[in-house]
Amino acid sequence: MRLMNMALPIVKNTINEMIKNHLTSFEKLETFKIADIGCGSGPNTLLFMSEIIDTICNLSKQNNNHSLEISIVLNDLYKNDFNNIFSALSSFYEQLKEKYGYEFSQKCIISAVATSFYERLLPCKSLHFVHSSNSLHWLSQVPENLDNKGHIYMAKECLPTVFDAYKNQFYKDFYSFLNKRSQEILPTGRMILTLIGRSILEPSSNDCCCIWELLAQSLLDMVSQGLIKKEDVDSFNLPLYTPYNDELKAIVMKENSFDLEKIEVYKCNWDPDDDDEDYNNIFDQKKSGEKVVKCIRAITESLLVTHFGELFLDKVFKIYAEHIDDHLKMEKTKIINLTICLRKK
Amino acid sequence: MRLMNMALPIVKNTINEMIKNHLTSFEKLETFKIADIGCGSGPNTLLFMSEIIDTICNLSKQNNNHSLEISIVLNDLYKNDFNNIFSALSSFYEQLKEKYGYEFSQKCIISAVATSFYERLLPCKSLHFVHSSNSLHWLSQVPENLDNKGHIYMAKECLPTVFDAYKNQFYKDFYSFLNKRSQEILPTGRMILTLIGRSILEPSSNDCCCIWELLAQSLLDMVSQGLIKKEDVDSFNLPLYTPYNDELKAIVMKENSFDLEKIEVYKCNWDPDDDDEDYNNIFDQKKSGEKVVKCIRAITESLLVTHFGELFLDKVFKIYAEHIDDHLKMEKTKIINLTICLRKK
Repeated sequence: MRLMNMALPIVKNTINEMIKNHLTSFEKLETFKIADIGCGSGPNTLLFMSEIIDTICNLSKQNNNHSLEISIVLNDLYKNDFNNIFSALSSFYEQLKEKYGYEFSQKCIISAVATSFYERLLPCKSLHFVHSSNSLHWLSQVPENLDNKGHIYMAKECLPTVFDAYKNQFYKDFYSFLNKRSQEILPTGRMILTLIGRSILEPSSNDCCCIWELLAQSLLDMVSQGLIKKEDVDSFNLPLYTPYNDELKAIVMKENSFDLEKIEVYKCNWDPDDDDEDYNNIFDQKKSGEKVVKCIRAITESLLVTHFGELFLDKVFKIYAEHIDDHLKMEKTKIINLTICLRKK
Repeated sequence: MRLMNMALPIVKNTINEMIKNHLTSFEKLETFKIADIGCGSGPNTLLFMSEIIDTICNLSKQNNNHSLEISIVLNDLYKNDFNNIFSALSSFYEQLKEKYGYEFSQKCIISAVATSFYERLLPCKSLHFVHSSNSLHWLSQVPENLDNKGHIYMAKECLPTVFDAYKNQFYKDFYSFLNKRSQEILPTGRMILTLIGRSILEPSSNDCCCIWELLAQSLLDMVSQGLIKKEDVDSFNLPLYTPYNDELKAIVMKENSFDLEKIEVYKCNWDPDDDDEDYNNIFDQKKSGEKVVKCIRAITESLLVTHFGELFLDKVFKIYAEHIDDHLKMEKTKIINLTICLRKK
């Protein structure tokens, strides 16, 4: 929700500008085509789209394009629960009918594509606008031949080869993402991507590594207690990369299909409900810690279960909660979010 | 599978003709866009699409359009198990890669739309070819205010108002289907629809009513045994209509967006595995009966459970099996399938 609130004004402004700058052709436009990449299957999936539909619907009325249709493609991996999204569509369409009438609801087309966003998703030249939030820091795979014993991601003590391997995998993946999307997006089409990054060039910065190193520490504690094997921890690594904004810029320039219109950097607290900017003031550190653990568990659970099995999951996250608790007593570390606005050449 | 085998040659020929008759524009075509309406979620869903992809791929090679992309939209109601289809896509794409290479697999885009096909499904003018098999005999709802006590569908003893109500609902639904698709299909685009119909104008013909009347009889037997209430049977009706081919033709002409290119009528045995044309020869009548019961149970189970609850389902189909058995001893009644080929004006 926090990410949505941050990206939404940028998304709305961009769509507004797109339509204002192309008014003559906009009046003739039959379908405004959007894709939401890495859409997930929670309540935010359709909430975000509802906001976009409102924006486009109001603009089309203001600009005398009353027959404009909106096509929205929701994308995520095939393991995403699309049935859950589809079962919510019925009431979503009811709301659209109430708000705008049956005729408009029929002009709002929602479809789904269950393929990795590092592959082709849609026909060539079929999109005006692409949005992605909270997804592109996930790599297509863990970097190959990673020698990263005792860690599960980049950390201060890692070998230089580990930093290089992560960086190279991200470079390859993000380049591929831009290249595939460039085939699908129409000239002057826009793409707004929000992902987790880091605040400085140094790849072991606290804001990107610390939260994962505490999870690595929890797994090593399990090893000490004889509950899991050291070699299983050694061979587990996250398929994740949290880039510095200059790294993103460099890949965009190298790939060369998009102009970079804007890049914004936000700092957020680990606790998604904590909007307090004050660096050291945590109102209820225990409660904040619980929310962080819940969040990290939600995004890592399936990866951990695949590697370690289900048996020790509760125990790992109990230990992790203690580490997070201790950390929050000392420091209110931030997460860095990057939002990048691109324009297809 | 039987329906697929019947419709597939017509589908392949039609795509072949489409491409041959528009060779000049075909060479410039960037994406061939297909929708499969009422796709289901069984193994046939992707099998059919695989055949279509082979056809288009071969034609595009023969006709020097090596960069042609194929967009396939799978459609069914939101209760369809799309997760099941999506989980099969990974190996589907692996097969495509093996057969045609990575580059081509990236040009084959598969998406899904989970909306009733009596509503708009896709953006305007976005389809070259629409296929639907074994779906369009399902109505959008049971006709309203139906007074059809003791029956669950049209039957010889029904009141004339019952036949009219069913016919009117089908007219409304099929007209709406044609009208929505006409907005989505490009000029000269084709649509091939296969559905269950009947052999004569008379709406109580054996080939469309008998199989359902035996199910009604089974439910009434349950009433006699005090297992379900008579009023529950009286208020249960199937949202189904099995049209005569002239009825289809009349609606196509009235709606007026499509030219009717062809209509074919096939007779099939109730037992989907019995290809024997001989009217009275059933090799193993008991086994045939079991397969009919299995088939009818699969397509009516959710409707029956919603209305009667789960408790008596096994019992109903045990009684039904006896009725089917008795019927097959006397007569090898046929199912009538209609395939209609339409061309967008």
